[in-house]
Amino acid sequence: MSTPRQRVVIVGAGFGGLTAAAKLARTDADVTLIDRRNHHLFQPLLYQVATAGLAPTQIASPVRMILRRQPNVHIELDEVTGVDLAGRQLRLGDRTIPYDQLIVATGATHAYFGRDGWAEHAPGLKSLEDALALRSRVLLALESAELDMDPAARERLLTFVVVGGGPTGVELAGAIAELTRRALACDFRRIRGQRARILLIDSGPRVLSTFCPSLSAYAKGALEKLGVELMQGRPVGHVEAQAVTVGDTRIEAATIVWAAGVQASPAGRWLAAETDRAGRVIVDADLSLPRHPDVFVIGDVARMPDGRGGVAPGVAPAAKQAGAYVAKLIDARAHGRASPGPFRYANYGSLATIGRKAAVADLGPVKLRGFLAWIFWCAAHVWFLIGFRNRVQVVLDWLWSYLTFERGARLVFEAVTRSREIRVVSPPVEVRTAS
Amino acid sequence: MSTPRQRVVIVGAGFGGLTAAAKLARTDADVTLIDRRNHHLFQPLLYQVATAGLAPTQIASPVRMILRRQPNVHIELDEVTGVDLAGRQLRLGDRTIPYDQLIVATGATHAYFGRDGWAEHAPGLKSLEDALALRSRVLLALESAELDMDPAARERLLTFVVVGGGPTGVELAGAIAELTRRALACDFRRIRGQRARILLIDSGPRVLSTFCPSLSAYAKGALEKLGVELMQGRPVGHVEAQAVTVGDTRIEAATIVWAAGVQASPAGRWLAAETDRAGRVIVDADLSLPRHPDVFVIGDVARMPDGRGGVAPGVAPAAKQAGAYVAKLIDARAHGRASPGPFRYANYGSLATIGRKAAVADLGPVKLRGFLAWIFWCAAHVWFLIGFRNRVQVVLDWLWSYLTFERGARLVFEAVTRSREIRVVSPPVEVRTAS
Repeated sequence: MSTPRQRVVIVGAGFGGLTAAAKLARTDADVTLIDRRNHHLFQPLLYQVATAGLAPTQIASPVRMILRRQPNVHIELDEVTGVDLAGRQLRLGDRTIPYDQLIVATGATHAYFGRDGWAEHAPGLKSLEDALALRSRVLLALESAELDMDPAARERLLTFVVVGGGPTGVELAGAIAELTRRALACDFRRIRGQRARILLIDSGPRVLSTFCPSLSAYAKGALEKLGVELMQGRPVGHVEAQAVTVGDTRIEAATIVWAAGVQASPAGRWLAAETDRAGRVIVDADLSLPRHPDVFVIGDVARMPDGRGGVAPGVAPAAKQAGAYVAKLIDARAHGRASPGPFRYANYGSLATIGRKAAVADLGPVKLRGFLAWIFWCAAHVWFLIGFRNRVQVVLDWLWSYLTFERGARLVFEAVTRSREIRVVSPPVEVRTAS
Repeated sequence: MSTPRQRVVIVGAGFGGLTAAAKLARTDADVTLIDRRNHHLFQPLLYQVATAGLAPTQIASPVRMILRRQPNVHIELDEVTGVDLAGRQLRLGDRTIPYDQLIVATGATHAYFGRDGWAEHAPGLKSLEDALALRSRVLLALESAELDMDPAARERLLTFVVVGGGPTGVELAGAIAELTRRALACDFRRIRGQRARILLIDSGPRVLSTFCPSLSAYAKGALEKLGVELMQGRPVGHVEAQAVTVGDTRIEAATIVWAAGVQASPAGRWLAAETDRAGRVIVDADLSLPRHPDVFVIGDVARMPDGRGGVAPGVAPAAKQAGAYVAKLIDARAHGRASPGPFRYANYGSLATIGRKAAVADLGPVKLRGFLAWIFWCAAHVWFLIGFRNRVQVVLDWLWSYLTFERGARLVFEAVTRSREIRVVSPPVEVRTAS
């Protein structure tokens, strides 16, 4: 008896969706993978693009290229607008795509704790657009400081605020510190030797609060060594254009980055599903939507049980594992095999890097710090890549950049013009030399 | 007797301005280099970024990085708005910069023969912004064709028009042909195996008209072999959104690129100078502005005499040579040495590439074609780089890309959304599979 081919539709080409597609490639399912972007993004390294350490092509790969050798996977660049659960079809504007199995893996976006007006002044870092915009902002702040003789303006331009003390915030703060230190030491004239002020603001008592306290403390020390000022245990009270308020203190900063919170993409609304406070869809033990065994919700958009009574964290490994799990489950069902049982998140540990040579790795019983952790961090990130060209290529590529680029990615694509970018309070007044 | 330091101000960090700054670095002049962009762009390879062959970081370098080791050169990211010739100062909005010597090297932009409305529908390729916009356009055209079942819409989406048969147009047409051929062969499902139509429209009788006829003919053959259709001897009559008219023929094309003409940047207006029809400033034999021996105008913005009664072409080597010449002249004058005589353009020949393995090189008595010319073309481009990191690094970098990237730069940075990008005439209607 031949089973008809299952039509599996996957929304989202991040870690969850792409892993599911890749695992389903070896089955006899017909897979359609839909994303609004044409590339898969290695998000953990986005902060490197934002601080001119790597170029976009080094952390993103066209989805069509990744899945080129998988003829049963069909890719569509489009935007989902809704789901018809009863009719089992996906809505994309006027058109629909029917499914037998649906996997929703649309990820997360920034959360501003209800103050969405802050998004304009304190953008986050979730996409290549975000990273390139931040990169331009940081570089242009330095360029403007070079042209501005007004001390207050210059101080504001040379102040960078990162909100959020998790891995993203820590990595960003460390990288901005290194970028500005090097630039100010070598590349400017009027602001040569000045110090940039990099503040990391966190509402919790310690940075990297999901790591063990000794590694938190190590990270704090490493950040301070890089010149980052930590404001811990104080939430941000207000964000405006070029200033944040923490308690009674108002800090003027031309560059503010939000790394403090995420919320799930709006898929929960499409599915009319029950969600938690962060908008994450609550799913069953097998990651399916309650009462809809053919609809799976995985990754950052879901509140996934970890198989041990807790909740899986919103990290790349969890999304990958979930994608692989669901693919296996779908294939088992299609062939009448026993299901793999409930999803179980295997926690291999947490990693964060601080600058170019220090990192922390909390691997349960094993804790690493410093250069050794950093080597481990590099190895883990390479291992993690989903057939992202091939791993050897990527290692050589990143090594090459690391050794030679010297922030060669320090490009601002657009021309600055007086009508747009240059708001100098007090331009330099130059005196004609006698001749 | 000590001479006061000359204050040399250079506007433009392209080939002309950057070469002048680099040569003046070894003198005792105080140099200020101003550009609206923070990077020097290797324009000859811009078409590679536009067709996803190379990434921006591989053909552009931050100006501050290039001139890092030259302490007498000061860089400002700003926009010049005028020149006060009598007062010998540059105007940048409200501020001014005085000069003893001024070098204007602001380059060229696109020319539409008076029809500036065409610019919106047929953008050119002069900056990284242009290149990335074109790259997105080409990639999104393919993605839209994959989703559109309407034959006329699909044909329009798979038609690419390049206007202009000079080196830029030829290189672009060849690269688009290769990109689409590979993508259509491997990466799509509904449009797999279809052919894109690439047209190269030129008003002259033969492509690469500045090359000798035999090399023109070779280039024509190489283009046709790549699948490019040539329309020669016919100027474009009209350009509208997604269509061009040539004589009586109206061709619908979602992507139209303008490589047909350039005009000088508006510096001529700042200088109230006499200009030719393309807006180029007419300069004396020593590249100075008539009656203003301390103001030099070089590169594509100038109509530079070639020292043999003719005019130097608007190519990178001419700009480089002019930059070096003016630096030498300024330094000689400052120290009371004899001037180097009139500017003389040394024509080392012309190069153009057609696809990844063929090129033509017109080196005067020596003509090269095919693979040998291509090797020569590569070597010449590498040699040409102005301390662009270092040449060894760049060779390895480009070789790496060439061998491994497989158009890995095929990224569209922005997310497509139904409100913006996706205009599908006839979306695919999909039938539910029995289950």
